Amino acid sequence: MVTKLADLAHQVGVSTATISRVLNGRDGVSEETRDKVLQALDAMGYERPYRLKKHSRGLIGIVVPNLEQPLFALFAQFISGALARHDLTPIICPQDAAGVSEDDYIDMLLDHHACGIIFIAGHHADQTSDPLRYQRLLSAALPIVLINGFTPAVNGYFISDDTEAGTEAALAHLISLGHRRIGLANGPVKFIPMARRHDRFVQMMTDTFGPGDYERDIETSLLTVEGGQAAATQLIDRGCTALLCGSDFMALGAIQAALRKGLSIPRDLSLIGYDDSVVMGFIQPALTTIRQSTLAMGQAAVSIMVSALSGIPSTAGQELLFRPELVVRMSTGRAPRRG
Amino acid sequence: MVTKLADLAHQVGVSTATISRVLNGRDGVSEETRDKVLQALDAMGYERPYRLKKHSRGLIGIVVPNLEQPLFALFAQFISGALARHDLTPIICPQDAAGVSEDDYIDMLLDHHACGIIFIAGHHADQTSDPLRYQRLLSAALPIVLINGFTPAVNGYFISDDTEAGTEAALAHLISLGHRRIGLANGPVKFIPMARRHDRFVQMMTDTFGPGDYERDIETSLLTVEGGQAAATQLIDRGCTALLCGSDFMALGAIQAALRKGLSIPRDLSLIGYDDSVVMGFIQPALTTIRQSTLAMGQAAVSIMVSALSGIPSTAGQELLFRPELVVRMSTGRAPRRG
Repeated sequence: MVTKLADLAHQVGVSTATISRVLNGRDGVSEETRDKVLQALDAMGYERPYRLKKHSRGLIGIVVPNLEQPLFALFAQFISGALARHDLTPIICPQDAAGVSEDDYIDMLLDHHACGIIFIAGHHADQTSDPLRYQRLLSAALPIVLINGFTPAVNGYFISDDTEAGTEAALAHLISLGHRRIGLANGPVKFIPMARRHDRFVQMMTDTFGPGDYERDIETSLLTVEGGQAAATQLIDRGCTALLCGSDFMALGAIQAALRKGLSIPRDLSLIGYDDSVVMGFIQPALTTIRQSTLAMGQAAVSIMVSALSGIPSTAGQELLFRPELVVRMSTGRAPRRG
Repeated sequence: MVTKLADLAHQVGVSTATISRVLNGRDGVSEETRDKVLQALDAMGYERPYRLKKHSRGLIGIVVPNLEQPLFALFAQFISGALARHDLTPIICPQDAAGVSEDDYIDMLLDHHACGIIFIAGHHADQTSDPLRYQRLLSAALPIVLINGFTPAVNGYFISDDTEAGTEAALAHLISLGHRRIGLANGPVKFIPMARRHDRFVQMMTDTFGPGDYERDIETSLLTVEGGQAAATQLIDRGCTALLCGSDFMALGAIQAALRKGLSIPRDLSLIGYDDSVVMGFIQPALTTIRQSTLAMGQAAVSIMVSALSGIPSTAGQELLFRPELVVRMSTGRAPRRG
């Protein structure tokens, strides 16, 4: 340990005596130096002495549809980091095609005495779903935060992407580029964000271009690459020059549909995704998309959870809406001149 | 509930009497029909009756560096799904730039009486790191499975991508395309997979082209987009016509470096990534890469964990190597003719 102490002292730029003081939990060291020493210790791969470790104040579940979609992985990462900084233990629960449901995870979390659950795009986003599961958790005095969904039947804490604002920003961008025949490749409207996107789309098209059959240019499918390809194929055939997609994965599918038809993006077809993640800047063509405020939403979810655990009355029953932003890349351009 | 029962019966294509029998846990229903009914119940958003729910047999930690990199998100997703199917509760623990360390998570998991931990690319992958933390867990009779790292000092269960085989496949592809000046943009060699890639690269270049200074064309940096860009810039300046990258994110950075220099891929520069995920097929240009056997590795990790929990002696101290595969897309091509 002598060499290690000397290494550590050298690395941090303090004396070995200071290192000793930190490791033995003695006074006479500034908070800043103490943190530096402990961080260097972590970085060099040593274990912290037991007494300097933090201890968990409880388990918090984070229920997500999956981790394959970058949006859900980012939510899970931001939220678990923020929880751990509050000495809470995050349990990320990705639902799984092979059959582990939201309810299975709720049971597991209750079995392990979780003290709160954060749901991301769960059944609360599905308007046809039974709100009873959430009402039961609340009557058992378990705080729940619900992200990207809303139901007035549940008196929980709601945090949502402002899908209407995102849809407006995307449509305004396409309209400003001269597009008139704009299609919407959306997910199932039983999900609240999809219903809001649908309604805002029809409303804004009507406001801009006057009354018309705008439903005709809406195709609903799965929020996947395959779903996007299927919906986009139909919308392209119907003569749309621009497509707004319900997710970035749908936009990836729309790109495939355009390639199949020999169309060039954005020359023949403009495309906007929804969600954004690092990789969307690297796809071909770099995708114009609506970026959800994942970090801010995750931090708000954790702040609300921490307040609720401390018994501080908060925003129950309200929905906090977070404004997304339009990230313009290479997949949108001026409307083509057609017959 | 009458309408619900009828809906459900209609959906599954059985009588309401059969549905009742399933919901009340009575006999006279085939396993297959029972599963169908329960799945339809889940899909329609209803809660399963309590008695039909599974109950957890314990917590298993899954410690990953982050969830931002699709590889780690996929590992976490596959492993947690497989654990849940064994009625084990997965706790995914993504380490975090803001300071939650592997050791913090170990403490949290012990505080919550986890009965096993699966580590992905943790300190066990770092040759300079102290193996004591793992030895302690083992002496406390806690089964641990360690993915993508190896140390003989720990008698745990090791599962690794066969990085040497992946490196060979990548290099053989580039050599067959006529490249001779091949660069390696690698992560820090203190990490075992990086060291193996480094050694195999030098060995195979020597075997193919005879003795030479192949270290000259190796640049080490962070396994990120920025690290890839920095390493690639240097290797391009040194005259390499093809680059093998330590991760897909490094390859994304290498693409940026090539663009900055006005090079076209693969005409002027061929590029191979490492890891693969859905999105890598959509980037510009679609990335040739080495796909880790994430699903098979995750399933093996869970099988081993389940055996260990049942006290069945298994492969402790051995390293199971999983062969990755070369996925050829658009970022590799014939070597350019140069002076």
